[in-house]
Amino acid sequence: MSVTSVPGFVAAGMACGVKESGAPDLAMVATADGAAVTAAGVFTSNLMTAPPVLVCRDHLASTGGRAAAVVLNSGNANAATGTQGRTAAETMCEATAASVGCATDEVLVCSTGLIGYQLPMDAIAPAIPVVAAAMTADGGPAAARAMMTTDTAPKTTEFNGVTSSGAAFTVGGVAKGAAMLEPNMATMLAVLTTDAAVEPDTATDLLQSAAGVSFNCLTVDGAQSTNDTVLLLASGTAGPVEPEVLGGVLADACRDLAVQMADDAEGSTKTVFLTVTGAASDAEAAKGARDTANCQLVKCSWYGEDPYWGRIAAEMGAAGIAFDPDAISISYGGQVIYAEGQIREVDEKALAAHMTGRRLDLDVDLGQGDGMAWIVTTDLSHAYIDENMRTS
Amino acid sequence: MSVTSVPGFVAAGMACGVKESGAPDLAMVATADGAAVTAAGVFTSNLMTAPPVLVCRDHLASTGGRAAAVVLNSGNANAATGTQGRTAAETMCEATAASVGCATDEVLVCSTGLIGYQLPMDAIAPAIPVVAAAMTADGGPAAARAMMTTDTAPKTTEFNGVTSSGAAFTVGGVAKGAAMLEPNMATMLAVLTTDAAVEPDTATDLLQSAAGVSFNCLTVDGAQSTNDTVLLLASGTAGPVEPEVLGGVLADACRDLAVQMADDAEGSTKTVFLTVTGAASDAEAAKGARDTANCQLVKCSWYGEDPYWGRIAAEMGAAGIAFDPDAISISYGGQVIYAEGQIREVDEKALAAHMTGRRLDLDVDLGQGDGMAWIVTTDLSHAYIDENMRTS
Repeated sequence: MSVTSVPGFVAAGMACGVKESGAPDLAMVATADGAAVTAAGVFTSNLMTAPPVLVCRDHLASTGGRAAAVVLNSGNANAATGTQGRTAAETMCEATAASVGCATDEVLVCSTGLIGYQLPMDAIAPAIPVVAAAMTADGGPAAARAMMTTDTAPKTTEFNGVTSSGAAFTVGGVAKGAAMLEPNMATMLAVLTTDAAVEPDTATDLLQSAAGVSFNCLTVDGAQSTNDTVLLLASGTAGPVEPEVLGGVLADACRDLAVQMADDAEGSTKTVFLTVTGAASDAEAAKGARDTANCQLVKCSWYGEDPYWGRIAAEMGAAGIAFDPDAISISYGGQVIYAEGQIREVDEKALAAHMTGRRLDLDVDLGQGDGMAWIVTTDLSHAYIDENMRTS
Repeated sequence: MSVTSVPGFVAAGMACGVKESGAPDLAMVATADGAAVTAAGVFTSNLMTAPPVLVCRDHLASTGGRAAAVVLNSGNANAATGTQGRTAAETMCEATAASVGCATDEVLVCSTGLIGYQLPMDAIAPAIPVVAAAMTADGGPAAARAMMTTDTAPKTTEFNGVTSSGAAFTVGGVAKGAAMLEPNMATMLAVLTTDAAVEPDTATDLLQSAAGVSFNCLTVDGAQSTNDTVLLLASGTAGPVEPEVLGGVLADACRDLAVQMADDAEGSTKTVFLTVTGAASDAEAAKGARDTANCQLVKCSWYGEDPYWGRIAAEMGAAGIAFDPDAISISYGGQVIYAEGQIREVDEKALAAHMTGRRLDLDVDLGQGDGMAWIVTTDLSHAYIDENMRTS
C-alpha cells in the first residue's frame, strides 16, 4: 500500500548521513524502466520558495509535464540557501538521471528539514546511485520512511478505480506530515503514482483539485512551508480513465494521507474534523473554518477536552463572515450544545466520552445560506511548544 | 495616575460577589457632579457582540455622544446572553443613573469575564448604589483593580498636554488587559478621561485614531473579544485643545496601556516589539507584522529565546505581501542576523543577552518600498496553555 502498489513503479529509502541520528534520509521513486511518464506537481505559494521547488517547476515546464523519477531527502530543507542551494538541487537531479537512465529535467526533487543550511552534498551525491540501485517493486514503504522528519510513522496509501474500458487502475502514495521538522518548518511532501493514462494538463488540474479538498483542508498551525510539494507520476499502462473518476480516486488518496498527517502532527493529542455549513458561500464557510481551526484559544480547549462553544462562536464572529448570532448552532460529537442563542441540554456522559477520544467531530451551522467547508486540524499541546521552542 | 488624575472625575471599585474569589469585581467612573460630558467609544467588531457593547452604542447614539458615568463589572462578560443579558446591561445603567443623578442613557456599561452565563444581578444591582457612593477623586486605581480578570496588576496611565490657550490638560486612563478571562475570552477594556474640551464627533475620530496606533497594534493570540471597549469622557473644564494635540496625548495614553497589557498578558514571558519597514504599503507591512506576531511557530521561538530568522522570513513569505526574498533583512535587538540571502555574523553574547530579556525588539525590512507598521505581541508558553485549556 504505497507508490509501489502501482505496477511499473519502484522505490527505495536509505540512510546517507544527512540526519545525525543515522535514520533513513534519502528516498527515490521511479518508473521501473526509467522511461518518463506524465507528471504533475502542486507547490507551496510561500514567497520564500525553496530551491528544490523552483527546480521541480522548471523541469515540469521544460519537459511539458513528464518525469521518470523523484529524489527526496529529509533532514535538511535546502531552503533559503540561494544559488548554492539551487545548484545542489540540480546536482541531485543529475545524479538521479545518471543512475536511472533518463534526462536531468525528467527528475523531480524534494527536500524537507532545517531551513537556512546548505545540503551536505558530500553525503547525498555518492548515495544517489546506491538508493537508485536499491529500488524495488515493494520499496514504497521504505521510501516513505526515509521522508520522515518528526513523523512517528510513515504515511502511505492506495486506492483503486475502474478505467473507461472496465480495467482496474490504482493510485498509490507516500507522504510526510505537516508536523514541524527538527523542529522547524511545517513541510508536507507527497508523491503519488498511478497507472491511469492522463495528459499532463489534465493531471495538473486533477492534482490541484485533489490537493484542494485534502492537503489544503489540513491545518496544524496555519504556517505554510517553503517546501510543500505534491507530485504525481502517471504511467498510463492501465489505459485511459475519465478525469472525474481519476480525480475522485486521487482525492481519496490525498485525503487519506492528509488525515494520517493530522493524526501524527507534532505534539497533537487530538485530530479535529471541523465542518461548517449554512454559510453565505463556500468561501465564507472556509474562512470561518480555517480561522477557528487556527485559533490558539480554540486549540487549547480541544487539548483540555472542553466542549466550550463560546470560543467557537466568538471565533466565527471575528472571522468577518455573515451569520445571525441567534441562528448559529454548534455541535460536538453530533450533539447540539448551543443553538438559537441558548445552551442546550446534552447527554453529558456521551459528550465527555467524545471529548476524551483521539478524534473530535465539531459541526457549526451558521444558519445563513448553503455554503459549506471541511477542515482537519489538531489541538495545541505542551508537547507542541516543547518541540518548537528551540531549533536545536 | 489614572482616570481620577483628571480634575472633576471620581471613581471607585469594590467586591460585589460576581467573582467567587471575593476579589473586586465592580467599578464606576463618573463626573464628580453627575453632569454629562462629551463621550466617545470604540468597540469590538466581533459579530457576536455582547449586550453591554450594544447598550453603549445605543446610549451614545441617543445622547449624541454624552455620558456622565461608566459602570463596569469583571467576572462575567454578559456575552451570548440574549434578551436577558440586554435587560441586565440596561438595569446596570438604570441603577447607576439613579445613584449618580443622570439619565439612564448617560451611563455606559462594560462587562468582562466568562461568556455564555447570565449576570448575577442579585449581587450587582444592590452594589451599584454602594460603589457610586464610594467614588472619590483618588479612586481610579481601585476602579482599575476591580476591572482585572487574569491581569496580575492594575493598568493605569496619565499624560499631560497644553491647550490652545496655554493651559495644562490631562488624559488619564484605567484598563484591563488582553489576557484571557477565567480562562476565556481575551477582552480588553479601557476608560479614559480628560479635561480637554472636544466635540463628540471629533472625540470619536481621535479615539479611533489613538486605538488604531495602540490597542489595534497589540495582539496576544489573534482572538478578538465579544466585549472589547475603549471609552473616553471629556469634561472640557481645561478649555479647547487642537485636535492633533489631544490626539497625540490620547495616543500616548493608549499606547502606554497597550504595552502594560502585553507585559501582563496571560502566560506571557516575553513582550515583543515588532517593526516592519520597507513594505510596498503600510497595509502590507501591517499584514506581515500581524501574521508573524500571531504565528504559533514564531511565538514558540520567542518563548525558547531562539533568534531563528527562518521562521520570520517564512511567515512573511506566507503573508501574501510583496517583497524580494534576497532583499529581506531581519534583526533582533538591533543586530542584523539575516540579510541579502545570507546569515550574518553577530555578537552572539549580546544577541543571547537580548533574547533572554523580558522585552524583544524584532525589526524586519522587506526592501520593497516605504510601507511600515508596528505591533506589540507576546510569546506562547506552557502557562498560556495551562490557563486556557479548560473553562473551569
